[in-house]
Parts: sequence; structure tokens; C-alpha cells
Amino acid sequence: MPVSFAAAEKAELLATAEALAELARGTTLAHFRPAGGIGAENKVAGGFDPVTVADRATEAAMRALLAERRPEDGIWGEEQGVVRGTSGLTWVLDPIDGTRGYMSGTPTWGVLIALSEEGDTTPGAPLLGVIDQPYIGERFVGGFGAARVTGPLGTARLAARPARALSEAVLFSTFPEVGTPAEGAAFARLSRQVKLTRYGTDCYAYALIAAGQIDLVVEAGLQPYDVAAPIAVIEAAGGIVTDWQGGPAYAGGQVLAAANADIHAAAMAVLKG
Amino acid sequence: MPVSFAAAEKAELLATAEALAELARGTTLAHFRPAGGIGAENKVAGGFDPVTVADRATEAAMRALLAERRPEDGIWGEEQGVVRGTSGLTWVLDPIDGTRGYMSGTPTWGVLIALSEEGDTTPGAPLLGVIDQPYIGERFVGGFGAARVTGPLGTARLAARPARALSEAVLFSTFPEVGTPAEGAAFARLSRQVKLTRYGTDCYAYALIAAGQIDLVVEAGLQPYDVAAPIAVIEAAGGIVTDWQGGPAYAGGQVLAAANADIHAAAMAVLKG
Repeated sequence: MPVSFAAAEKAELLATAEALAELARGTTLAHFRPAGGIGAENKVAGGFDPVTVADRATEAAMRALLAERRPEDGIWGEEQGVVRGTSGLTWVLDPIDGTRGYMSGTPTWGVLIALSEEGDTTPGAPLLGVIDQPYIGERFVGGFGAARVTGPLGTARLAARPARALSEAVLFSTFPEVGTPAEGAAFARLSRQVKLTRYGTDCYAYALIAAGQIDLVVEAGLQPYDVAAPIAVIEAAGGIVTDWQGGPAYAGGQVLAAANADIHAAAMAVLKG
Repeated sequence: MPVSFAAAEKAELLATAEALAELARGTTLAHFRPAGGIGAENKVAGGFDPVTVADRATEAAMRALLAERRPEDGIWGEEQGVVRGTSGLTWVLDPIDGTRGYMSGTPTWGVLIALSEEGDTTPGAPLLGVIDQPYIGERFVGGFGAARVTGPLGTARLAARPARALSEAVLFSTFPEVGTPAEGAAFARLSRQVKLTRYGTDCYAYALIAAGQIDLVVEAGLQPYDVAAPIAVIEAAGGIVTDWQGGPAYAGGQVLAAANADIHAAAMAVLKG
């Protein structure tokens, strides 16, 4: 398992991640916001709806690029499964994170790309991550020394924000119904203690932690490809992502993403009850 | 009260609305996403937080433009109250709709600008509306023959989508806690009957109805400046906006915005219980 990379290797891996994100912008936007929106009545190729077509076309394009550019790396994709590699590295791909947001035309779904250590039953720890929002034209990159967002206002450094009291914190989750009933009850306890709880942002909420705008994202029932890129981007920005017990989150399941160690500890104490 | 406008007058009013939106982009983005986000600890001028400063600066700039360009029209603003006019027309301004989204760094708050008939205790019926999202650089305009969105993918015609079954519909609201307990129960009844309910979008959800991407937005406890522009944009796109009893919504309160008459009737029946 690789533990260090030469500068040229880091640059090549960062450039590959950006090339994947660039490719995904075209394939995801090609099917975004069709006239009349996405629904039961507008099936396209093979009877699939546009979101499924965009999801598959995007992952296929990213896999083709990796086959050419990084043939020794593994691939762990949402749509087309696992390819083992020989380099000890694997690319973790979620072509459209937030398909329900995508099918509703919102601008907070995203393309998630991570480079992780190759794992056994799940990918290992992420080393590099990209959260890309194609419609806004905004890209959050973290890892190998990078921690930056490039978007409508130019390029800026990503830095999660310093500690504040839980009563001053802003918490996000995609849906108010978080996980199992027990997980939902724990989330509700936390929600009652923070200043503001917002919903509906899919992966974009993780980017907002890295950008220093919010304090916490709490979710449950996630897949490895949902969390790998957010973990890398948030950690590069100085934040912390674990499961609700403080263990690694990269295998999926429960996720507690926090801007700093203090708010992470405070939120975890409430989630544990 | 004016009932018809010459073509040149319509063009001037549309151009004024766009000029207001353009002005608001600069003043809102100047305070958006400060390093470390918006919170108790980063007060700016006069002890106010950046969202308050941006809100007031934006409305002041829009009022100054109107004083010069449309001195006979009234103004009904969120921040600085009511100025009566003599033309029978009034500009209804919400410089930042979705201040909690703005303070969290999300891209779904917006600038709302409407031209309405002058009313007595509230503005009258809206004739023209703009929903502008400055960070994305996206503007939805409806009224006087215009029904268009201009944004990252260029300019497109706005057209709300045709009827589908309630069980296939997509419903949005800003928060899961809608209005009073009785209103919340009615919303929950509707939410259980639709295919998908999403939260957290502020005014952007209304734009998604006009853009043909979703079917319903249901909210309660709104102010006149929250609804005037959305009503004009959605009606220009062929949709319908009323209160929960089918009456006018432009005075605020309960809002049921729908893509078409069929889904409007179906949703209203469920809300009435």
C-alpha cells in the first residue's frame, strides 16, 4: 500500500482527477433539465430515464479515461462495480451524487471522484477528492496539498471554520428522515441543539464545510462512493469526518462531518445520547 | 389602476427589472461566503452581520435606481418599508430571499423583484417578476410577454410542465416544519401522496416550477415580497399560484404553486383535507 508519492506523481493524480471531473460536466449536463423535467413519461435510450442514462454515460466515460491513463489503478464505481488494480490505489466514482436533486433540476447534486487506498470489501482511506457541481461550474478539490474551490467567483483556498458553540452551529442533512428510527432520533436530538438545520443539499453540504460556511453534516446509510470524495476534501480543508462513534467513515454507513475537532466532539456526544 | 401598457412601456419596465437584478448581483455577492462563513463572531459595519449588511445595501441600491428611473412608481421593500407612488404601479423588492440559505453559503437564495399593481394594505397583483440567483448567474424573468431563464446553459424559454398524477409529482418546501401545526399536518398529508418531497431551496423552488422541472411548492406564513416575483414568473410560464383555498396569493400567507391546473386542483383537495 503506497504511503508516499513523488511530486510528479501527485501532480499527475490531481490532473487525472480534474480531467475526470471535466469529462463528467459534459455528460451530466447533456441530460440535465430536459424540457418538462425528468419523470415517468420521458424515457430515453432503452427505456431508461435521463438520470439513469446520464449516470451510466458519465461513469463509462470516466472508466474509459482511467483505462487509458491509469490502467494499473482499481475502480470502485456506483453504477458499474469494482475493478481490482495492481497499484494499491483505487478510484471511487459517483457520477451523480443526489440523483433526486438532479431529477428535480436543483443545483446541489454533484460528481464525486476520489482516489483511495485499495481496500478489501470497501475502498480504503481516501487520499484525494473532487466534488464538482457542473451546472454552477464549481469544483472543490482536496488532497496532495490541494485545498481549493474554483467557481463563479474565481479560485479560493478551502478552510473549514474554527470552533463555535453547538448552539451557534449550522447543521445540514439531505433529508429530515435520517437513517433508522434510532438514528433519526439521535439526529433530531442534535438538530434541537444547533442554531439552524437545513436539508436538501446532497453532496454540496460537505463542500460547504470545506468552504468554511457551515459546521456539521450528519447522515446515515451512505455508500463508500458517497463519502470518499467529501472526506478527502473536508480533511484537506482542516475538517474531520468520522462515523458516529469516531471511527473511519470511508466504508459508508453513518457519517459525521465537522468543521473542527471541538464541534465534532460536541456533536458526537449528542448523537451518542 | 393600469390595465394595458404600450410596447415601449413594457420594454422599459422589463429593462428596469433587469437593471435592478444586475445591481443586486454585485451588492449581494460582495458579502457572500466570507472566510469562515457568517456567524455571531464576524460582525461588520455597525455591528451587523454580513447578511444584514448585504440585505440593506442591496435594497438601498435598488431604491436609488428606482428613484432616478421610475420616480412615479411606489416601492414595497422587505427592509425599508413602503413608499407610495402615483403611477398605480409598485416595485416589490426582497433583496435576499432565503437569508438562512445565504448565511450558509448555499446557491438557492435569490433576489426577488416584482412590479405589481399598487395595493392598499399589501401590493396588488404582480405583472412582472424576476428571480435572480447571483452566485450561479441565473435569472428567471416572467411577465409582459417574457418567460425566460438566462444562466450557465444560455437562454431558454420557461414552460411549466403538463399534468401528471399526484403520485408522480415532485413537491418542494423550504423547511419540513410548514406553518402552524394544522398547516403542517395538511402539508404532511400532501407530502405522503407525492413521489418526492425536497426541502431547503428558498425561492429557487418556484423557479424550478417555471422551468418545468418540478410540480408543486407549498409554503405558509409568507410575506408579500416573498411571493410577488414567483407568482409573476410561474404564471408567465403557464403555472398557477394561489393560497390553499384557491384565492389570490399575492398578499402572502399560504402559497400553493403548481405547474398546471390539474396538479393544482389535486394538491388543493389534499391540503383542504
